[in-house]
Amino acid sequence: VARTPEQFRERYDIDAHIRHRVLELDLAGQRVRVLDLEGYESRWEPYDRLLIATGAVPIRPDVPGVDAEGVYSVSTLQSGIQVRRAVDELQPKKAVIVGGGYIGLEMAEALLLRGIDVALIDMMPQVMNTLDSDMGGLVSEAVRQAGVDLYLEEALEGFDVAEGRMRAVITSARTLEADIAILGIGVRPNSDLAADAGLALGVRNAIVVNERMQTERETVWAAGDCAQTFHLVSRRPFHIALATTANRQGRVAGINLGGGYAVHRGVVGTAMTKFQDTEIARTGLQEKEIKDLGWAFVATKIKSRTRAGIYPGSASITVKMLAEQESGRLLGAQIVGGEGSAKRIDVVAAALHSGMTVAEVADFDLGYAPPFSPLWDPVVIAARQTAKQV
Amino acid sequence: VARTPEQFRERYDIDAHIRHRVLELDLAGQRVRVLDLEGYESRWEPYDRLLIATGAVPIRPDVPGVDAEGVYSVSTLQSGIQVRRAVDELQPKKAVIVGGGYIGLEMAEALLLRGIDVALIDMMPQVMNTLDSDMGGLVSEAVRQAGVDLYLEEALEGFDVAEGRMRAVITSARTLEADIAILGIGVRPNSDLAADAGLALGVRNAIVVNERMQTERETVWAAGDCAQTFHLVSRRPFHIALATTANRQGRVAGINLGGGYAVHRGVVGTAMTKFQDTEIARTGLQEKEIKDLGWAFVATKIKSRTRAGIYPGSASITVKMLAEQESGRLLGAQIVGGEGSAKRIDVVAAALHSGMTVAEVADFDLGYAPPFSPLWDPVVIAARQTAKQV
Repeated sequence: VARTPEQFRERYDIDAHIRHRVLELDLAGQRVRVLDLEGYESRWEPYDRLLIATGAVPIRPDVPGVDAEGVYSVSTLQSGIQVRRAVDELQPKKAVIVGGGYIGLEMAEALLLRGIDVALIDMMPQVMNTLDSDMGGLVSEAVRQAGVDLYLEEALEGFDVAEGRMRAVITSARTLEADIAILGIGVRPNSDLAADAGLALGVRNAIVVNERMQTERETVWAAGDCAQTFHLVSRRPFHIALATTANRQGRVAGINLGGGYAVHRGVVGTAMTKFQDTEIARTGLQEKEIKDLGWAFVATKIKSRTRAGIYPGSASITVKMLAEQESGRLLGAQIVGGEGSAKRIDVVAAALHSGMTVAEVADFDLGYAPPFSPLWDPVVIAARQTAKQV
Repeated sequence: VARTPEQFRERYDIDAHIRHRVLELDLAGQRVRVLDLEGYESRWEPYDRLLIATGAVPIRPDVPGVDAEGVYSVSTLQSGIQVRRAVDELQPKKAVIVGGGYIGLEMAEALLLRGIDVALIDMMPQVMNTLDSDMGGLVSEAVRQAGVDLYLEEALEGFDVAEGRMRAVITSARTLEADIAILGIGVRPNSDLAADAGLALGVRNAIVVNERMQTERETVWAAGDCAQTFHLVSRRPFHIALATTANRQGRVAGINLGGGYAVHRGVVGTAMTKFQDTEIARTGLQEKEIKDLGWAFVATKIKSRTRAGIYPGSASITVKMLAEQESGRLLGAQIVGGEGSAKRIDVVAAALHSGMTVAEVADFDLGYAPPFSPLWDPVVIAARQTAKQV
């Protein structure tokens, strides 16, 4: 139990500039109980309208040693500063990263740049499980090429700790000695306050909201990583912890709270990142999501170039596209490739927003000049090949 | 008059590997008169189905001295080789380019790389007249910054010639001494054969075709720069001499000629190029095209960054967007900016294909990560600002 403001800050990883913390919501009474971190006393504050924007918290696995010194999560600015300080001060030689998603890959790249030996473990058969296994496999390959020791299909079982300090990461298959370990196994909506106050939680325990970002209580709004969104391709409630969604929801909530009118219709699931020279992007539904919906689908994967083949800097790009079996409706795409690859996913995202078929995407009049694209844009080639399968 | 195959090749700028030339079409008789450039004799060849793919020819202004040595057009591979040979052999110190479109700017960049002083004249108040004047002005600025002497609102009046060789370019305002001059004032459909055979010509004298690329004669097809297309935003017949359109039309014509079924619905007018570090892209209708249609419209121009501001290599990008006044229907966009700017136009092109409003584009779930974009993509920012004007 945190007894002092300092302990409280430490335990909850609170930036020094944060002065208050909300402990409890009383929705019937339209008030919130606030802890003043300066004076260390709590009081009730009334509200007319309330916005819950509590974000997400990193998932910490319940395994032995997870709280030892040397085991880091990276979520807030503060936690990022802590990792950097640890690298500067401890001069670690070996780092183990748990989880090969966005955070895991970005940390792997950063630590390699500091000259540290990096091992990465992931439960799945490939890194980046927001991609299908074949496309994630291309990323796994890039990670291995970069010199990362990649251990796939291995679960985290715990940490070997001596005198309060982590010395090794224990997986289902081996023990990896390490000076630091970084957890990158995802986040969960920080919706405990809302749940305690009786608000309904939905997908992945995200707060249920309507299109205006209003909860079931008329005066209470929620937005960002703590709130649910809607998937425009699956037509189902959805949760995705991304800055883009959080900002779009925040804008809509703000307009409505201020007396205006705005709606957040939802997302198509677009996300991207980069590992060294490999760009990674995805939008729409991936195979396992489509299977979960029980929809019949076709998938095609094509390889092309980012620029005209004759042009300097032309790089390889792989585009995978998914469509509904009978209708040919575009369902999603994934891209892995060199410089100039990732942002091409935006064309697919735009097409998902209007519910187009892959045949329609194959007919897109996209821009061409040798520095930017082969004559047939890779997205158009993928759409055409997918249309042939429908 | 060309009397020998060699003269014929020279006069019509024919690559050495071309063995035949079509002199005449007899559509009633389903035959074409072919000149054999080896034997130098002509004969009639019958056909079941005919494809006219005669492309475009560079416009040569009817001014004194245009046929002098040292005045070049750049259209075919052969003509490009000729210019390069002239640069290698004559070691010109001064070049004048007539026309600031795609060809003019690419030639300016290439000649600057060879250390040649470049002057460029254009009749319009800015280069790149496929952009609105404000956006073209940004390109004019980049061209000037690169050290090109830019003379705008000056018409070509002729060339000063001595002993058959061009010595200076004469504009409406000045005389510019030059060792070589390059014409880049556009192309026209090479539709003379079709016209002589009685086929209907449409916009800019391009051959009239239906969606299957069939002319009014059932057995005669046309595709590429010689053929008309359809503008999906203006809903009017259109002509645009671009590799993308030509290839899309050629594919459709080929499928239909071969007994299959395919349609070319049209284009949205997407095009892009690059001048040094400045990327230039456009799609849809520009202001003067919208005015010609008599439609009321709104326009917005925003300035943003190509990547997150904190990220190395983040460059400036300007996006202009145009929408119909009452409906808010997206009508077009133009982009000028640093690396990573041009291909963003494809999102706008995709939205034009489905007839979306700017408010819908403002709600697009586009990809974000610091290496690729600011959190709000510049296209989304432009759409949102434009939506406010509607």
